[in-house]
Formats: sequence, C-alpha cells, structure tokens
Amino acid sequence: MPLPVYPIPGVRLGTAAAGIRYANRQDLLLIELPAGATCAAVFTRNAFCAAPVVVARRHVAAAAPRYLVVNSGNANAGTGHRGLSDAIASCEAVAQLTGCALEEVLPFSTGVIGEHLPVERLAAALPGALEALQEAGWEQAAQAIMTTDTVPKVASRRFGLGGAEATLTGICKGSGMIRPDMATMLAFLATDAAVGRDLLQTCLQEAVDVSFNAITVDGDTSTNDACILAAAGTLGNSPLAAPESADYQALREAVIWVCQELATAIVRDGEGATKLVTVSVEEAADAAEARRVADAIAHSPLVKTALFASDPNWGRILAAVGRSGVGGLDIDRVRLWLGDTLIVTDGGRAPGYTEAEGQAVMVKPEILIRVALGRGHASARVLTCDLSYDYVRINAEYRS
Amino acid sequence: MPLPVYPIPGVRLGTAAAGIRYANRQDLLLIELPAGATCAAVFTRNAFCAAPVVVARRHVAAAAPRYLVVNSGNANAGTGHRGLSDAIASCEAVAQLTGCALEEVLPFSTGVIGEHLPVERLAAALPGALEALQEAGWEQAAQAIMTTDTVPKVASRRFGLGGAEATLTGICKGSGMIRPDMATMLAFLATDAAVGRDLLQTCLQEAVDVSFNAITVDGDTSTNDACILAAAGTLGNSPLAAPESADYQALREAVIWVCQELATAIVRDGEGATKLVTVSVEEAADAAEARRVADAIAHSPLVKTALFASDPNWGRILAAVGRSGVGGLDIDRVRLWLGDTLIVTDGGRAPGYTEAEGQAVMVKPEILIRVALGRGHASARVLTCDLSYDYVRINAEYRS
Repeated sequence: MPLPVYPIPGVRLGTAAAGIRYANRQDLLLIELPAGATCAAVFTRNAFCAAPVVVARRHVAAAAPRYLVVNSGNANAGTGHRGLSDAIASCEAVAQLTGCALEEVLPFSTGVIGEHLPVERLAAALPGALEALQEAGWEQAAQAIMTTDTVPKVASRRFGLGGAEATLTGICKGSGMIRPDMATMLAFLATDAAVGRDLLQTCLQEAVDVSFNAITVDGDTSTNDACILAAAGTLGNSPLAAPESADYQALREAVIWVCQELATAIVRDGEGATKLVTVSVEEAADAAEARRVADAIAHSPLVKTALFASDPNWGRILAAVGRSGVGGLDIDRVRLWLGDTLIVTDGGRAPGYTEAEGQAVMVKPEILIRVALGRGHASARVLTCDLSYDYVRINAEYRS
Repeated sequence: MPLPVYPIPGVRLGTAAAGIRYANRQDLLLIELPAGATCAAVFTRNAFCAAPVVVARRHVAAAAPRYLVVNSGNANAGTGHRGLSDAIASCEAVAQLTGCALEEVLPFSTGVIGEHLPVERLAAALPGALEALQEAGWEQAAQAIMTTDTVPKVASRRFGLGGAEATLTGICKGSGMIRPDMATMLAFLATDAAVGRDLLQTCLQEAVDVSFNAITVDGDTSTNDACILAAAGTLGNSPLAAPESADYQALREAVIWVCQELATAIVRDGEGATKLVTVSVEEAADAAEARRVADAIAHSPLVKTALFASDPNWGRILAAVGRSGVGGLDIDRVRLWLGDTLIVTDGGRAPGYTEAEGQAVMVKPEILIRVALGRGHASARVLTCDLSYDYVRINAEYRS
C-alpha cells in the first residue's frame, strides 16, 4: 500500500507538456515557494556540470528562491555558452510570468546530454504549468521529472515540532548515471517548518551524505545532480537555528529518513536492476577505508553480474576487497557474510558453509553483503543493484 | 594470416589433460627452462592474492626457476592455508619427477576462485606433460591455459643482438577480471638471449607498465595475475647487464612489442567484447592525471554500452572526464575526438560536427577516443573494450 503523500502548505507544484523530447507527456515542472522560505542546495561535483547547475548555484547564492523550473528530456549539459544563455532564458520566462526577480528562479534539467534546450517550447508551456500549481501536485511532479525511471519517487512524513506537527515531503528522479557525488540527479524536498538557512544547509548536507551520496548504480556521476531542501515557514514556528535543539533534531531525523527513502527508491529502480543490495563494511581502520572497500564491491561488474545470476560467488567479492587499495590488509582477519550466513573466515571458505545456504540468500530480491576487515571500528554502507542484460539494453538504446 | 611462432632453443613446453575442471581438454602446462636461465617476475597487487602467487613469489626469490607448472580451471584462490599446501604439493610433484629442487618450481593457477585444487589429479597428469615437452609447444601451451578466452594468445619476434639473431616468444591468457595491476592474469615469455637478472626484471617491469598494466576489460583486478620473462641464455651471448647498450635496447623493444601484442589480444578477446577501444588522454598536467582520466572513460559502463551500440555519445565521455577527479579542470579547454573527428570544443559540440561523422567512426571494430585536457604535456593510453549483453551472459553463467 503506498504511503500517504502530505502536501506542504504554501508550496505549490504544477506540470505541463512542453514536448521537449517526449511527446504527450508532462515534462515541465514548476515549483512555487512562499515568500520568506529558506532554501538549501547541493550540486554535482562533476567538472562538466550542466548549464542549469551553474545558473542555479549562482542564483541560490544571490537570493531566496521563489520558483524552481525543471524539465526532463534534455540535460542542457555539454552545451557551452549557449547552454548558459538557455538556462538563464528559462528563468527569465518564469520571472516575466510571475513578476519575481531573475535570481529568484532556479533552473534544473535532466535528460540527453549535448543537445540544445528548446527554450521557446519550454517558455510556451510555462503558463500551463503556472495555471496548474497546487499544493497536492507532488505525485504529478515526480512523474514529470522521470527519464529512464520506471516509477515516480516520492517520500513524505510528519514529525513533531514544538508541540505542532510539521511535514516533510520530497521527490526525486534517477535510474542510471547514478553515483551521486553531492546529491542525486534531481531531488526536491520541502517542509512547512521555518529553518534558518545555514542550519538548513547543514541538515541537507548531512542527510545527503548518508543517502544520495551512499548509492551507486553504475559508478557514473551525473553532470546534473542537484538536491534542494526548502523550508516554507508556513508552520508558524520561530525559525530553527540551534543545532542542539530537540526541534532541529526532529527535523534532521525526518530529512535523513526522506532522503534515504528516495535514495533507496533510485537504486531499486536502477537501470535493469533486479536486486537491491546493501554493502556493509565494518571493522575498518577509518571511514574512508570502509567506504573504499564498499565502493569496490558495489562497483565491481563481476560482483554485480553474479548478483544478477543469484550466484553466491564470494570469490569475486573477496577479489574486489583485495583490489580496493587498503594497505596492509591481513586477509586471514577478513570475514564475509551473505545475509546472516558466514561465508569466509581465515582466508577461505568458512567451515560448514554450504553452497545451498549462500544460494538461499542470493535468490532474494534484497541482499546484504557484509564484510568485516578486522582492523578497527569504522564502518560504511553503500546501496547498489545488480548488472543485468537490461542495463546494457537500456544504455545501448537510450541516448543519455 | 597468423604470424610465425618461433621456438626458443632450450625452452620446452608440454601439456596434458588433468581433468581439473574441464573434461577432455588440455588443462595442465609444464614449461622447462634450461640450467643457467635467469627469470624476472611480476605479480598481482590484489591483497587477496592466490596461493600459487604467494608460493611463486617466494620461490623465484630463492632460486633460479627450472620448471613452471600451470593449471587452468581452478585458481587456488580464497583457499586459505590448505591452498598454500596444495600449491607447494604441486611443486613437489614436479621436483620429484624431474629431480630439481622444490624452490626451482613455480606454480600458477587460473580459473574458479574458492575451490580446493585437486592436487592428485594434477600430479597424476604430470608425467604426460613431462613426456610431451618440446620446443615447438608454445601454441598448445597457449591453448591449455585458457578459461573464458575464446582464442589462444601468442606473440613472437626475432631481433638483432650483437650480430646474432635473438628470439622472443610469449603466451598469455585473460578475458575477464581484467584490470591488471602488475601483470595480466597469466603471461609467460622467454628469450634465448642471456640477460642478467636485475636488468631482466627492469625490462619486464617497464614493458608491463605500458602493456598489461594499461588495459582494462571490467576494472576487476585478478587475484592470480602473474607475468614471467625467462632468459634461457642458449643464444651464447655474454649476459646483458648494461641498460644503455644497443643490445639491451633491442631486447627491451622486443619485450615491449610482445607484451603489447599479448595485452591487445586480451582486450580484443575481452568477455563479450565487440570493439577494441584505445583511450588516449593528452595535454594533462602530469602522467597520473592523464591516467586517471583515461581510466574513468575506460571503466564507465555508460561509455562502454554506448560503444557497444556504436553510438557517438560524447556526452557520456565528457561526464566521465568531469567526474575523474581532476582538480580545477577548465571545461572550455577540453577537446574530444572520435578517431580524427573533432567532436567537442569550447565546452560543447564542435561547430560543423555532424552525428553522421561520429557514427562513421563508431561503427568500426577499432575505435580511438582522444581527449586533450589543455593543462600540460603529459599523456596516457589505455586499451579497453565495450560492454555487451555477452559480458553479462558470460559472467552470470560462469563461476570465476
């Protein structure tokens, strides 16, 4: 049963069909934030970041956003100087229609790289999106930003805040070119709570680190990754500014929960994915080392094809651990579990382990790979998926 | 037309069917080196290196090898302490049959990880391999060490050395789990020239760096990588020891050529590969940066699936360059060519470039991706292949 999607008072969303790449589908999204809302943002660290990322980064630093304009079907990336003009022109079209300042509009694009954005078509569809604005628009919004996604991705929850009940809702899109290095491809979250901008940014960065930045489908970081968290302030609380307050901790927990729900939805919908895989690395000397080992396993095409085949091929997992570049690794101290089943100890197969036990774990749709390094107390978790025929089909057929 | 394979006087090779994993095929190889031969070796840096790698590394440090014993079908990796005993037992069997010392035998294994080596079957087949020893055995030897390889890999050439004609011949195997970090899965080279051991090691290391260490099929470094270069000394020259001598330079050039031929054959035979792709990165600030960018492109599943589809999807190549972690990259200075066709300049599509031109390059079986970073004078080259349905099929079906 789908969980409820709560609207955020003061935050309205509207979609339209601009015909940017796809015919007969909603591909344009406008999000309206109330005056006085604060906004936090994180963006891709890919050096070839898309034109809208450059413009959004600049605008969010200059003013409090009132509108986010998002299109799917065209990433406006690898489009040089004209790409920048096109992104700015999209913002200008919104500013003209709504009477806000240019810098109060943030642009976002996702889709094919290297083609120019058809700004006229986008601008022509904007009045329709404006007309469609409604607080109940989150699910249509999640539909409108999809590309190779097979399902829309929404998460929503309520949480107590100073005696009142606050709400947090978010949407995202992403399926391939997923190894976020700041945020996922596109994610938009809003709460009705009032939150000071610095604390909101801290909150978003922290949540992103344990959600969107801890997933990988194919190891390819997108040029367009962006994640926005808006605090509408319509709840009427006095703006949160103290990181140690119980109210902030309640917000923080909700933001982490929604980000992790959305990030998990991306991996579950990873291109061609048939399994959701959690890689957990424990007993590392430090967090960076734990993450390095988890990434090596999560990115290994051999591990991922074995997962697709439901093959408890622990040799490939060990080989990935071994090549991850951890200096002085003592292989006799490494242990490996699939689910709760101990597979490897003392540098080889665990006594009593049978292939049937490993197989029983691997046929499940959700799999835990757990590695203990025997070097310390740091750990890391990365979510990933398997590598299937369909990943190849989708990416050989789709022009991203 | 296949090139000639020259025997190396004094070096004999014999194969036998031991039934280690495959029925009715040669899966055991014995290589005999003459007394007085010198031997250079490089091995995998995977921390989970296989038992035979541990033993071979120890033996080659202790004595000049007289026999190499190689099996396919079982990697003897992830086999703990029993794996070490099994590798030593294989050497003992050879030592007993031939009368040489234990340390004069080097073991090598390739195949499935995590299963114990059937040493009795290996030992039972050894007399047959010993009986079969012949100088003309190189091609059968290349057959016997194959696993998922579809073709045997041999390279051979003659070169002038102090007025005489010297010979160098090598074989290798490898198709998946290929991102050598020292040498390829298994490669054995021999020359009849006499070469001092230190200089031979320098020569091999240098050749490996520009051949086996500059290829990738799937980014997964094997647990069993090993490369051996033997100098039989049967030519009668006085042992080469001066790096600046013309004779050494002739040897060096021949070793690099044979290693590059063999490394190219591995990528060409990469699991599921339909294209041979050279990634050339130029104008980098230093060699490490050039290599990092080349690796990011060569490992990108999105680039590799586009190559499979013959799709000139330069946006994915730019995205890989952008995420490779080069600090302060100015995307306006980056240029990208497919073959001789300039695709990207000034941060976007080159003026006049048409999709048809890109397509014309991409349909070819051999493709050059060339990136200039505009930052300096260093460069790097990596050979790779595409990612096809067959890569997934082979690795979902095969237990490596």
